[in-house]
Amino acid sequence: MTHEETFMELAQYWNQTMPFNKLLGLEITQFNSQESVVSIVWDDKLIGNPEQKILHGGVTASALDLAGGVVAAANILTQLAELSPEIIAQSLSRLSTIDLRTDFLRPGRGEKFIATAKIIRSGSKVAVARMEMHNEKGDHIAFGTGTYMVG
Amino acid sequence: MTHEETFMELAQYWNQTMPFNKLLGLEITQFNSQESVVSIVWDDKLIGNPEQKILHGGVTASALDLAGGVVAAANILTQLAELSPEIIAQSLSRLSTIDLRTDFLRPGRGEKFIATAKIIRSGSKVAVARMEMHNEKGDHIAFGTGTYMVG
Amino acid sequence: MTHEETFMELAQYWNQTMPFNKLLGLEITQFNSQESVVSIVWDDKLIGNPEQKILHGGVTASALDLAGGVVAAANILTQLAELSPEIIAQSLSRLSTIDLRTDFLRPGRGEKFIATAKIIRSGSKVAVARMEMHNEKGDHIAFGTGTYMVG
Amino acid sequence: MTHEETFMELAQYWNQTMPFNKLLGLEITQFNSQESVVSIVWDDKLIGNPEQKILHGGVTASALDLAGGVVAAANILTQLAELSPEIIAQSLSRLSTIDLRTDFLRPGRGEKFIATAKIIRSGSKVAVARMEMHNEKGDHIAFGTGTYMVG
Repeated sequence: MTHEETFMELAQYWNQTMPFNKLLGLEITQFNSQESVVSIVWDDKLIGNPEQKILHGGVTASALDLAGGVVAAANILTQLAELSPEIIAQSLSRLSTIDLRTDFLRPGRGEKFIATAKIIRSGSKVAVARMEMHNEKGDHIAFGTGTYMVG
Repeated sequence: MTHEETFMELAQYWNQTMPFNKLLGLEITQFNSQESVVSIVWDDKLIGNPEQKILHGGVTASALDLAGGVVAAANILTQLAELSPEIIAQSLSRLSTIDLRTDFLRPGRGEKFIATAKIIRSGSKVAVARMEMHNEKGDHIAFGTGTYMVG
Repeated sequence: MTHEETFMELAQYWNQTMPFNKLLGLEITQFNSQESVVSIVWDDKLIGNPEQKILHGGVTASALDLAGGVVAAANILTQLAELSPEIIAQSLSRLSTIDLRTDFLRPGRGEKFIATAKIIRSGSKVAVARMEMHNEKGDHIAFGTGTYMVG
Repeated sequence: MTHEETFMELAQYWNQTMPFNKLLGLEITQFNSQESVVSIVWDDKLIGNPEQKILHGGVTASALDLAGGVVAAANILTQLAELSPEIIAQSLSRLSTIDLRTDFLRPGRGEKFIATAKIIRSGSKVAVARMEMHNEKGDHIAFGTGTYMVG
């Protein structure tokens, strides 16, 4: 199985098994060692401020953290010679977010939101990713920067 | 009605009406212009990593953002001479998170989590708060820093 | 005098009169309301770690903060109808950095360093800029995000 | 030689040999694996804004980064069984700042400034410290958070 196939299987597996991502409707639609895409469809349960009908900032932070986390995960996996389920599970057990900065640029209004991540620092121990979130019209909702433990 | 009474009424109102906070089980238990407390009870739906049964980082960020947001809100309200519902609603409509940094210190394991915020900069336009999250045993889970638009 | 001419005069004035920028050799070479460029030439006095001959992280943070600050300043100035010295001085007296995040990607090695900033949020009270620093070979040294009080 | 003696010797060595710290007048006055203190005396060359006579934000960031860096260094050293110069040099060559957030609370006015750091996460690969800067009157000038590579 190639890395790309493994990534797609992992995305499907995570989308189906990660409780909080399912609760929010976060879906990984693409990822490799350079970039990732996470989408989320508007749902009234995601509202932070009921008067203004905008996304809770925690939803935005969750989407950005997931996008950054999967691109960091891909960085771990592409350094592995073999991709057996055991080795994947063991390698990814070391993955965790060290810190995350979210910059909220505009109110989170829209029907669908797309979070994208790009790796800006990849190493054997720490990876750093920059993220963006736009709505379906292309309005820029948020920026993010995440530092991840990868080894 | 005193500011303290207004704050307790507001906390109850927000706890009952903010959809995303209800979805996660976030509850504001105390707040004034200097500090705030938000609690959240463990629920399997909040799990990020199913293998390790730890909170999703987005839950932590959401709790910290809420704790910081309410202390910023209290800062706005204490500057008002009158606390009618209209003036409160109008004043708080200007409140929004500009940026949020979350530092994840330990895996989010526990039965209950307490997020606390303290104001570190209060002004007529921008307020800054520092936040912490501990579990019921006192383990320090996360730190946060939030910058809020208040005017 | 057009805004562009005013910006160039201001850049020259700042380059000549800001003590810490002169001490470090920071030079504003371009700025408008969308982006700015700050350059710095290697000097042994800027070394942080003498064993490895790399820039002190504080030099990098200083260059990024200056690049973000001038693009925020340009945002203030372009909102003014008139650009007399008094109005410029009064308007810019409200400018200050609220917070700054620096992500160090690679050791700061090189002969010359270029810090660039782009505005990502502009408002009447707060502006946010994203910054990058590269060396003369194009190696990407650092990323930054700055939040500025502008009104 | 005990760890404490080694730390004091290192502080003196760094104070005398780190070019940028000397240029700014940054002095490490105390450090161990839990906390550190860095002081800086006002000097006109450190001025950012000449109209207002306040410290350049880069000076503040430099002082906070140094305070956090030395407490991270102490964390590395206390994990070593032996403290020969070679082992110290080799261990500290892995130390670098991954990211640094600075929150500017008040204008940097005063005669002397004290930056303090406390470790909030210590590990074999990454350490996180929180920093504060006050002036000689106890006015709180800035907060900082730094993530450091230590292994």
